[in-house]
Amino acid sequence: MRRQITGFSNPTVKALRALRDKKHRKASGQFLAEGLRLLTDARESGRLPTTLVLASEDQGGAGGHPLLRALEADVVAAGGAVIETGADILAKITGKDNPQAVAGVFDVFDTSLAAIDRDAAPIWLVAQALRDPGNLGTMLRTGDAVGAGGLILIDDCADPFSVEAVRASMGAIFTQSVAQARWDAFLPWLRAGPGQLVAASLRDAVPYRGAPYAAPCFILVGNESRGLPPEYEAACDLKVTMPMKGRADSLNAAMAAAVLSYEVLAALGG
Amino acid sequence: MRRQITGFSNPTVKALRALRDKKHRKASGQFLAEGLRLLTDARESGRLPTTLVLASEDQGGAGGHPLLRALEADVVAAGGAVIETGADILAKITGKDNPQAVAGVFDVFDTSLAAIDRDAAPIWLVAQALRDPGNLGTMLRTGDAVGAGGLILIDDCADPFSVEAVRASMGAIFTQSVAQARWDAFLPWLRAGPGQLVAASLRDAVPYRGAPYAAPCFILVGNESRGLPPEYEAACDLKVTMPMKGRADSLNAAMAAAVLSYEVLAALGG
Repeated sequence: MRRQITGFSNPTVKALRALRDKKHRKASGQFLAEGLRLLTDARESGRLPTTLVLASEDQGGAGGHPLLRALEADVVAAGGAVIETGADILAKITGKDNPQAVAGVFDVFDTSLAAIDRDAAPIWLVAQALRDPGNLGTMLRTGDAVGAGGLILIDDCADPFSVEAVRASMGAIFTQSVAQARWDAFLPWLRAGPGQLVAASLRDAVPYRGAPYAAPCFILVGNESRGLPPEYEAACDLKVTMPMKGRADSLNAAMAAAVLSYEVLAALGG
Repeated sequence: MRRQITGFSNPTVKALRALRDKKHRKASGQFLAEGLRLLTDARESGRLPTTLVLASEDQGGAGGHPLLRALEADVVAAGGAVIETGADILAKITGKDNPQAVAGVFDVFDTSLAAIDRDAAPIWLVAQALRDPGNLGTMLRTGDAVGAGGLILIDDCADPFSVEAVRASMGAIFTQSVAQARWDAFLPWLRAGPGQLVAASLRDAVPYRGAPYAAPCFILVGNESRGLPPEYEAACDLKVTMPMKGRADSLNAAMAAAVLSYEVLAALGG
């Protein structure tokens, strides 16, 4: 069942490696996730890679691991491809010196707002112009922790399918919904149904503790350095402020989202 | 006053560049911080670089910026060195393609427990075996946000003076105290004075909201993947648990520290 690949210049290797670039992810509609843990999270969330790449047993492969055997069987049963290769080639594909012994290629998900079922969860995270893929992945992970439905990315954000974001999500890319939209499309979508839009803000805000949160609660955080545009804040139903004892920019966007998410979770009885 | 350096092979350039390696930081007792914002935070916290490195005006330098002029004057008055060089050499020193127009060399601080004044703040963060310099810097930043006194690093942690940690701290490396100690030294130090040791835990823990926090409160978080050793948890005065709606490892160490820190801040009347 396994196809062996040993050459660096093999076109499949080149195509896999290219998935580290946004433009190739966009063109192919695929992205890369690495590590048995992440791939097992994916499998348990009902997502299987179209191609599974694993290291040969004699090169640190984890082929004998029961979870990997189960994954491989599922991929094969679903008509996917399995490629066996060397640790050096896996390192080239993933761009890591110490690559995980397995990687998978997944079809990117539908990230339109239409794919979001707002009634599926009491909390949704919304990030505007979030630039750092690590912050993006961390927000997905936080969303998973508080039982959020997913992350809605507004305007120009980092790519949720980048290797860095997928890695930082620690598997939450597979458990959380992800949508991408311009503000001009998001706001009408939000207003077409129930939903409270909450922003962490310094202007006209009430203390974040004890604020009247309501489900489904959409927690909006802004760009890492500029914060939210004033007109976006003005469109919010609730503006809350968190204590900042240090400098004004003390809290990073992903941290603010985490603290606020836990507050909303508690307020909603979670 | 300024010394011009134009050659990549200049020994000063090599020495500065070497500060990106832990072993050279240790040997020289110095570390590197970059960017006018960070250096201004340092200056406002009473820390001046022993050497200031800035880009020539004709290469994107910020020499005309009033904050940089003030910084340069202070460095010179304190007997420090000022080096003017090209953007390409600054890039080599900082390891960034788009270097900030200024960098500074600082003496590392005293990171012994003896330098910690526990009465100076109601909250202290304590991290055990924290491996990721980005998480470390983020925890410093969170500490700044909640008015913590500083971060105590237990056992083998990432280097707080690494370029990545300093960068992620967004200047909090200069506002927060930092100590490094083995657990065997930390615990007797803690018990020699007032202090409540609180761990986020899954074992024998009470809900983190409404728990009886008391100042000075030392918030202990464990390694990113392994958490805290059981015997460390057992030594804590209070173990608290946070809701995890998703997978067990949903919350990253720095996130857990942030959520818990804000809870303690609120409980202590902050």
